[in-house]
Amino acid sequence: MKMNYSQRLYRIRESMKQNGLDGMILMDRANAFYASGFRGTYSLILIMHDIALFMTDSRYFEAAQKRMGSHFEVVRQKNDGKGQLKCFFGVRGKLHIGFEPGIPYEKYRWLKEAISPARLVDAGYILKKIRCQKEPEELKFITRAASVADRCFKAICREIKSGVTERDLALGIRRFFDDAGAESESFPAIVASGANAAIPHHQVGRRKFRKGDCVLVDLGCRIGGYCSDMTRTVFLDDVKTREKEIYGIVREAQELGLHAVKSGISARQVDQAVRQYIHESGYGDFFGHNTGHGVGIEIHESPVVGPRSDDVLEEGMVITIEPGIYIPGKLGVRIEDLLLVTKEGAKILSQTPKKLEVIS
Amino acid sequence: MKMNYSQRLYRIRESMKQNGLDGMILMDRANAFYASGFRGTYSLILIMHDIALFMTDSRYFEAAQKRMGSHFEVVRQKNDGKGQLKCFFGVRGKLHIGFEPGIPYEKYRWLKEAISPARLVDAGYILKKIRCQKEPEELKFITRAASVADRCFKAICREIKSGVTERDLALGIRRFFDDAGAESESFPAIVASGANAAIPHHQVGRRKFRKGDCVLVDLGCRIGGYCSDMTRTVFLDDVKTREKEIYGIVREAQELGLHAVKSGISARQVDQAVRQYIHESGYGDFFGHNTGHGVGIEIHESPVVGPRSDDVLEEGMVITIEPGIYIPGKLGVRIEDLLLVTKEGAKILSQTPKKLEVIS
Repeated sequence: MKMNYSQRLYRIRESMKQNGLDGMILMDRANAFYASGFRGTYSLILIMHDIALFMTDSRYFEAAQKRMGSHFEVVRQKNDGKGQLKCFFGVRGKLHIGFEPGIPYEKYRWLKEAISPARLVDAGYILKKIRCQKEPEELKFITRAASVADRCFKAICREIKSGVTERDLALGIRRFFDDAGAESESFPAIVASGANAAIPHHQVGRRKFRKGDCVLVDLGCRIGGYCSDMTRTVFLDDVKTREKEIYGIVREAQELGLHAVKSGISARQVDQAVRQYIHESGYGDFFGHNTGHGVGIEIHESPVVGPRSDDVLEEGMVITIEPGIYIPGKLGVRIEDLLLVTKEGAKILSQTPKKLEVIS
Repeated sequence: MKMNYSQRLYRIRESMKQNGLDGMILMDRANAFYASGFRGTYSLILIMHDIALFMTDSRYFEAAQKRMGSHFEVVRQKNDGKGQLKCFFGVRGKLHIGFEPGIPYEKYRWLKEAISPARLVDAGYILKKIRCQKEPEELKFITRAASVADRCFKAICREIKSGVTERDLALGIRRFFDDAGAESESFPAIVASGANAAIPHHQVGRRKFRKGDCVLVDLGCRIGGYCSDMTRTVFLDDVKTREKEIYGIVREAQELGLHAVKSGISARQVDQAVRQYIHESGYGDFFGHNTGHGVGIEIHESPVVGPRSDDVLEEGMVITIEPGIYIPGKLGVRIEDLLLVTKEGAKILSQTPKKLEVIS
């Protein structure tokens, strides 16, 4: 499977044209990977309408030369590269150059000086928007990563027993991904048991699972540079009536979210469908985070599925739907699927069952 | 071992005073961990002379309340927190508030609006400088992390055999760290063999070790939130005369660097000692990166040990000395130790031997 970088460059340039930009500078790692396939920690990509330069330092120059196809001219950076940018831009007048507002403020200041008299224009939306719509090759990787996550969850469920620690389970997850040939976890797996599950981004600790615990597991892996993400919550040996009720509400809310998904709908509406149900069920105060997020090269990317989102779902987007209810000091339940937005609705990529499971 | 956060707050406030700042806002993860011990992915810390606020969202609020001692007032963020900052700063006039220039440009823009009429002042140097000088508790963690890295290197050396892949070795490294109780790797280990070793930040791949290979291994782990970092290069079965020569030059250069280290010397001079020797040995064109860097909460932090550094080495700093020679298409050799800067010189924390090793 080979990504079509010429096609990507073409899409970036089309968007530059539509937005009146003479060029675009990419420094963000995920955008650099998208545009060029480069995985190092430092590069500066300059895309003009007639030329595309890939600048990196001595650590990565050899590797970049090897990898980069004909669409980029690879340039070895001298010192911090400012002199080279000054040479390039000094003779070109007052161009408008797009930049990513996610770069560090100090990089922005540096870049502003380096490209003078050209001017920097906030153009973070360009790559965000293009990256949202997954190409078939990207979907293949994401689907594979989702499938490995499913297999992982199934395998590690067998390890959930009284006395096993959260950390044991988290290590088991990582080893499964290693052995399955994934590049890495897409984020450090969350394993939160008992009252820890009420802390939505709990740090995995030494707590041992006990009879009656809920065990919340949020995991994903990276394949071909692309992430998967899923969450399930299971119970150990026993489940109380109120826990069953909460699980049922989260599950129903998640289904409502999945059913709301289709191309053309606003992400806010999807969030609303989920949030309103939880609110009406009396647990509105216990669901504080967004309903979901885009997934791709980054584990969190565009679009946002939340109450303040302005994004509209489009065909080819990959997002999560992951409502939760967290009762401080008691328990937490979250259910999360990864899905592809299509015209007909959500094509769910996570295959792990969602019916309440009591492990014994 | 417990960090003294009151003492840290005191040091930050002293520096604020010296620099005419009324307050300081911390958003950087490593700085937040240093100031508060918080390990989540989102928080905003506001330190004034009379109050210290720790603001985080619903995901982390419970955890932060549990952890945070009396030195911070923990505030639950509403929406994106801008309204709360506006309330706080709106009534306080034209204060000068330090910020970290490493935060994303878009965060800077947001912050600037949120704290108006107060003004943002670049104050990244404050935490950089304070964090440089390691406290005894921090040194204990770094020393333990260095010692686990030594043991790891010794253990995985036994796995270096013809037919084993770079990836096999890298997985072995991670598993060693897991089993040794480290929190994580401090960075994804670099295992570069044969011509791959000429690529200083080579991506671990499926290449199998072969007789005559050099194998460059750069690894480190994190304990208690603190990193270690070391590199060794070994040879498999056989080493040619020229390789021996290159190894000898790198080793001698590294020793010269270690001997140059002591408190009060400029980091540039240490770099110079190393670089000049490699240059005089005829390999100046094959050593493109800095000689070293600070290590602590982050794997790369202040000071910089390089030809353009303005840093001066001070007692209590922890740095690496890691020269290398990289011959494209042929081989690479790098030797890296972690050390503590003292009045008397370098106290080397990496205990792994450096004499040329041919594994057979």
